[in-house]
Amino acid sequence: MPVNLIAPEASSLLPVDGVWLGCAEAHIRKSNRKDLLVMQLAAGSHVVGVFTQNQFCAAPVLLCKTHLASGEPIRALLVNTGCANAGTGEDGLSRAKLTTEALAKSLNLKPQQILPFSTGVILEPLPADKVIGGLPAAIADLKQDNWLNAAEAIMTTDIVAKGSSRHIMLGGKQIAITGISKGSGMIHPNMATMLGYIATDAVVSAKALESIIHYAVNKSFNCITVDGDTSTNDSLILIASNLAGNDEISETSAEYIVLRDALTEVAIELAQAIVRDGEGATKFITVRIEGGHDEGECRKVAYAIAHSPLIKTAFFASDPNLGRILAAIGYAGVEQLDVNVLKLYLGDVLVAEHGGRALAYEEAQGVAVMQQPEILVRVDLGRGSANCTVWTCDFSYDYVRINADYRS
Amino acid sequence: MPVNLIAPEASSLLPVDGVWLGCAEAHIRKSNRKDLLVMQLAAGSHVVGVFTQNQFCAAPVLLCKTHLASGEPIRALLVNTGCANAGTGEDGLSRAKLTTEALAKSLNLKPQQILPFSTGVILEPLPADKVIGGLPAAIADLKQDNWLNAAEAIMTTDIVAKGSSRHIMLGGKQIAITGISKGSGMIHPNMATMLGYIATDAVVSAKALESIIHYAVNKSFNCITVDGDTSTNDSLILIASNLAGNDEISETSAEYIVLRDALTEVAIELAQAIVRDGEGATKFITVRIEGGHDEGECRKVAYAIAHSPLIKTAFFASDPNLGRILAAIGYAGVEQLDVNVLKLYLGDVLVAEHGGRALAYEEAQGVAVMQQPEILVRVDLGRGSANCTVWTCDFSYDYVRINADYRS
Repeated sequence: MPVNLIAPEASSLLPVDGVWLGCAEAHIRKSNRKDLLVMQLAAGSHVVGVFTQNQFCAAPVLLCKTHLASGEPIRALLVNTGCANAGTGEDGLSRAKLTTEALAKSLNLKPQQILPFSTGVILEPLPADKVIGGLPAAIADLKQDNWLNAAEAIMTTDIVAKGSSRHIMLGGKQIAITGISKGSGMIHPNMATMLGYIATDAVVSAKALESIIHYAVNKSFNCITVDGDTSTNDSLILIASNLAGNDEISETSAEYIVLRDALTEVAIELAQAIVRDGEGATKFITVRIEGGHDEGECRKVAYAIAHSPLIKTAFFASDPNLGRILAAIGYAGVEQLDVNVLKLYLGDVLVAEHGGRALAYEEAQGVAVMQQPEILVRVDLGRGSANCTVWTCDFSYDYVRINADYRS
Repeated sequence: MPVNLIAPEASSLLPVDGVWLGCAEAHIRKSNRKDLLVMQLAAGSHVVGVFTQNQFCAAPVLLCKTHLASGEPIRALLVNTGCANAGTGEDGLSRAKLTTEALAKSLNLKPQQILPFSTGVILEPLPADKVIGGLPAAIADLKQDNWLNAAEAIMTTDIVAKGSSRHIMLGGKQIAITGISKGSGMIHPNMATMLGYIATDAVVSAKALESIIHYAVNKSFNCITVDGDTSTNDSLILIASNLAGNDEISETSAEYIVLRDALTEVAIELAQAIVRDGEGATKFITVRIEGGHDEGECRKVAYAIAHSPLIKTAFFASDPNLGRILAAIGYAGVEQLDVNVLKLYLGDVLVAEHGGRALAYEEAQGVAVMQQPEILVRVDLGRGSANCTVWTCDFSYDYVRINADYRS
């Protein structure tokens, strides 16, 4: 079950002026479920994205990049679940194009103004006819007050719909920010098997929006891991409809940071929701590495811990088998690590120092921390001032069950 | 259950002249099990070793390296299970020294002539008194015809004792080679949570023996992975008692390759046995990467596949979810990979080419291969002539159960 995560109320996901969402059941893989989402954007919207670095990236990812590079203003997004359209070669690209052409025709746009997204099983052909067949119903459903339905429409193995929303003030104008995400397995930075869409009605330059998405993704979606697998389809899209009436935010605006930080908070909440709903997760684990020479070595240590199946199963069992954490630190590949100066904490409890177990540590203290649904693992490398934080979950029987059964 | 692996018959593990083995129940962690092994070596033996690269390496590993570097001829090995004596700092080193000093006294040797080894739980103090208390019984048990007992004495979560043995002829003399190994979790190259001891009575120079161990380990123990965790205690020791009466083998001897290859075969068999007995394993999987620019990039791809929990759970389920393999190839980090030229095979079945599913491939073919207990995954990168092979196992409910319960 998801760790401290419940689906948002429909009313808590604020409409964003200039962003309409419509869902449909297109029967792409299964019946009786929403599996198609269309998002229509007001003219004048700015749209930026970051995508998976997997070299086997999916056809829709390739098409997204081409369309964003074309310079045509993006006016709609098309998302299907059930089929990832990845590992599908030229044929996959053709099928993705068919769907964007069909939506473009329906909305009186050019195909380059559409960004397509797919998530689901890899290596199977996209049933483009089913996607296209679902478009009229999705278009008929387009409305601004439809974020929760949209969050549900993009779910795959997700148990809980994921959304985050807030109002902020910029130059005396009320600004809405709303985002949704999906993903619970094949989660690893750069990026995860995740889709994320965050929209705001703030007026913000395209250049500032581009800066903000890179800042936000490095603080959020690039800090999560469930199983270390980087997917073929990961995409995060940030939309500004520019309708809120505030003075345009540029990178030098006084209020740039206000907007950036609010969007980043939403991104962090959406990213953490993915880990909280990680396949089979029973614990939410924050791995914080401090005192490194640089962020790079902190990340090596954080991911060595966050990826270790041995550590993750120990968390599942509430077993403070902390030696496994020391072992992971030891093989993380940090140059000239001095194991005698580093300190390992579980929550507030000092577990290890001077290359071994801390004198005052008693196992009951470790068990008490491990039994909590939210656990902090903190390592002080004792050799500098860099740090990083990574979020992950434990590794349970259900992870195996879900992934052994996923296609059935 | 182990995959196509049964314990060797006691009689099939040939005695090696000049190598005596004795076991005892020292009650280090649990009662009623052999947990202590002493190996005594004839004067004039050559002993070489390779050890974990984990920076949190265990106290006995540090001591082994010091003793091997001392130049004193190694005359005995001391192995305990139940406690890894890792993450134990200076105190751990003192305790390891106490045990080698006690064994040295009993055998009338210098402490530097003893190599100590520990395996088991990390971060707990070694009960040196129990190890020392078990020495008289182990010494009383010393005999050449005792390899199976020794293999059993070094088991931890292993289900099956692991041994391999053969006779070869060198210069008209019959040579015995026998080896034992242990390990089934925290298995990853450089090296695995494994202990391995291989002995021969061949007469071979120390220099040639050193070359052989590096050759053999790169073809065997450095090609296996269960969970990607490199342990703190991994050690492989190669012993030549030099008693067989053959002309001394040097690196330039005509028969050097005969000895090297026979020892390597034993090392491969012992390494594969660890994977076959991998925690929760139900399938033995060979990942072969061909057509790479260099071996390094082949290994990146092989380990991306072999470490992916998503792929390993799909193997457990006999689910030919081969897109997960393409995804792993795509995130392995190979520079400028052309996904359109690579080919993916499952057994003899061509599964993917031209960036997508092979036209002739049908899922029933994939299922048929996946249902076998021994599976070959082969990737032709189509860009060079380098290759590599890695062995791994699937990822089952039992992996989680074993690692959630290990300390209880």
